[in-house]
Amino acid sequence: MKQQIPFSKDIELAFKNDPPGQWLSVLPKGCIRLSSGYPEPALVPSKELKESVANLLDAEGDLPLQYIGSPKIPELKKIIQERLAARGVMVSDEELLVTSGACQAIDLIARVLLDDEALVALESPTYMEALEVFRNYTERFMDVPVDEDGLQTEIFAEMLKDRKRQGLPLPRILYTIPTSQNPTGTTMSQERREHVLALAEEYGFLILEDDAYGELGFKENPRLIKELDRHNSVLHIGSFSKVVAPGMRIGWVAGAEELITTLNWFKKDLHHPFAQSTMATFLETIDFDERLKHLAASYQSKCETMLQALQEFLPPSVSWYVPEGGYFIWAKVPGIDTVELLPKALAAGMSFVPGKYFFLNPEEGTEFLRLSFSYASEEEIVQGIRLLGEVVQKALAPK
Amino acid sequence: MKQQIPFSKDIELAFKNDPPGQWLSVLPKGCIRLSSGYPEPALVPSKELKESVANLLDAEGDLPLQYIGSPKIPELKKIIQERLAARGVMVSDEELLVTSGACQAIDLIARVLLDDEALVALESPTYMEALEVFRNYTERFMDVPVDEDGLQTEIFAEMLKDRKRQGLPLPRILYTIPTSQNPTGTTMSQERREHVLALAEEYGFLILEDDAYGELGFKENPRLIKELDRHNSVLHIGSFSKVVAPGMRIGWVAGAEELITTLNWFKKDLHHPFAQSTMATFLETIDFDERLKHLAASYQSKCETMLQALQEFLPPSVSWYVPEGGYFIWAKVPGIDTVELLPKALAAGMSFVPGKYFFLNPEEGTEFLRLSFSYASEEEIVQGIRLLGEVVQKALAPK
Repeated sequence: MKQQIPFSKDIELAFKNDPPGQWLSVLPKGCIRLSSGYPEPALVPSKELKESVANLLDAEGDLPLQYIGSPKIPELKKIIQERLAARGVMVSDEELLVTSGACQAIDLIARVLLDDEALVALESPTYMEALEVFRNYTERFMDVPVDEDGLQTEIFAEMLKDRKRQGLPLPRILYTIPTSQNPTGTTMSQERREHVLALAEEYGFLILEDDAYGELGFKENPRLIKELDRHNSVLHIGSFSKVVAPGMRIGWVAGAEELITTLNWFKKDLHHPFAQSTMATFLETIDFDERLKHLAASYQSKCETMLQALQEFLPPSVSWYVPEGGYFIWAKVPGIDTVELLPKALAAGMSFVPGKYFFLNPEEGTEFLRLSFSYASEEEIVQGIRLLGEVVQKALAPK
Repeated sequence: MKQQIPFSKDIELAFKNDPPGQWLSVLPKGCIRLSSGYPEPALVPSKELKESVANLLDAEGDLPLQYIGSPKIPELKKIIQERLAARGVMVSDEELLVTSGACQAIDLIARVLLDDEALVALESPTYMEALEVFRNYTERFMDVPVDEDGLQTEIFAEMLKDRKRQGLPLPRILYTIPTSQNPTGTTMSQERREHVLALAEEYGFLILEDDAYGELGFKENPRLIKELDRHNSVLHIGSFSKVVAPGMRIGWVAGAEELITTLNWFKKDLHHPFAQSTMATFLETIDFDERLKHLAASYQSKCETMLQALQEFLPPSVSWYVPEGGYFIWAKVPGIDTVELLPKALAAGMSFVPGKYFFLNPEEGTEFLRLSFSYASEEEIVQGIRLLGEVVQKALAPK
């Protein structure tokens, strides 16, 4: 029997056996959800997907409902290849695997590359689900701090040098979300991208570049690490979850052919023909670049609303990073334990995610919290941050 | 890096690096597909699923397209529970995991229960995909022959006794398809079901009961092994692939709570809200028992057509089991290597699957072949078997 570390499907179900997770898994009705890393309901194309299904099944009959056979399945792959090519990443059919969301891609990579001996390098803080995936395979981690320019590669370089000098094991993989990181919202600078790639080549680890938010930049993002990659040091992970709909469960991983082939052997949930062919049909009917522009503009407006509300309602001791894309704002509330703050916030009518979930060592997250501007409406965002301001003020008030 | 044994998504893609697999992966246009273990196109409810999607998205908007939130997801689980209960298997929410098809259930079980030390007991012949899944985790197998009453439990009992006496490792799991087995089409008798369960209790292994065809019996099937199970010795695996549509990728596994919880931790492709909520919507609008009756009657008619054609067109040396349900007929063609026969059959215009894929030791399958009566029309079945008869006669003719 392998390790049995509970892990969950979603932030709202995460850690459901510990109180904050339990609280978030049953949000009170009417609660303003600044905890949810979900797309805004109005930006989920449910009407268009309904039409896509109708057109697809009218045209193809049973094909998308059989194991294989729908021409839309290879077409989806082609669309992903074309989108990657437009961003400077050319991949062949054999270098690309369509997965059931980015999370499955991460899991497949972990299954193939990790064992109990493996050391995994992570950003600190990082995406909690990825952390939980890796914990199914190893307990050996090294975490590298993130600042407003992403992963601090200078510190990482020192850590690697030290480990090498001491004869300690070097990481087998580095998991990074270089663009609009979850949870910090920060983006790794171009210079650091080049640096981290050089480190991968020098120390022989693979970079898992999780690009879930990479197409939701408010301005032009730096180049993909995979674009800079010349020696197959990068596995690039993408997803339609943030830009179309997470419930379709479609992501991908691109990398060296041999590795992709192996990941494919271990992927036992097959092609998901219905979901994949629906997605291809939808993508063929829209201008995806226009869609992305619209999404980015919408989320930027919501982000600015949240930033303004934070400025207005939070005490001056509270600080945050200003995101350049994505779904999240990461805030520090000095002097407050955000796990203790959560029930008060929920009682007031808003939710956030306490920082502890995003750290290898939960204690490092005590004074942090993650806010999502993606799901709630602009009105709700203002109201939610106003309520957060009130509970923070109250918690900071001298007793 | 773990073992890297290529495996495939589907029979038609299976073993694509070896000639018969390659031939089957690119069937000539117009080829009568008696190789495909697919539902008949007309029995795949594409019109109804189209309507289900429309009704679902009209009613719920973005919910089935988000990570969680659609009330249809727990409803699907409830529907599966009710259907199992009607067959004498009561399982709680914690004892049931909805998976992306039966294949993912098998893989999750293998991931959690197997390692390179583990011994797996298998039916011989058995479902090739399951064999490939297990081979990702171990190379230790024991195969137990199948006859017209399914797994030969008396032989299995002797093998287990011998191993115990010799101090050899005992199997950790037995994988069985007790009803309308793939590929033999045979069904394990009630007596043998009770016997195999007693063996599991005596020797401490788990039974994986793959029930993919259990609801497609031409007459009443014996009771589920899971129904007889009193000590949580059975993991019951089911699927909507054969009775609704494989492209939806929805199956399940039911068993001991602790084990199901662990499988859930390792299931990283999440809930597939769009597919699962569509399936629930569809199931709520139909009389599933009526549907099953209709399917069974249709497949029984096709099976009888195939049996009659075999009788008519194949030489008397060829024999087969008469199935009582499912999708398959398993035939023995003495004196013929079915791998050599396949290109001739394809050239003549029909396909089958050579027996070798279904055996741990491929050589045991040389004279066997699997025919599916599920996918082709009755007319095609007659024509396909006529063509098969011709190539078999020709191959048997003295040179």
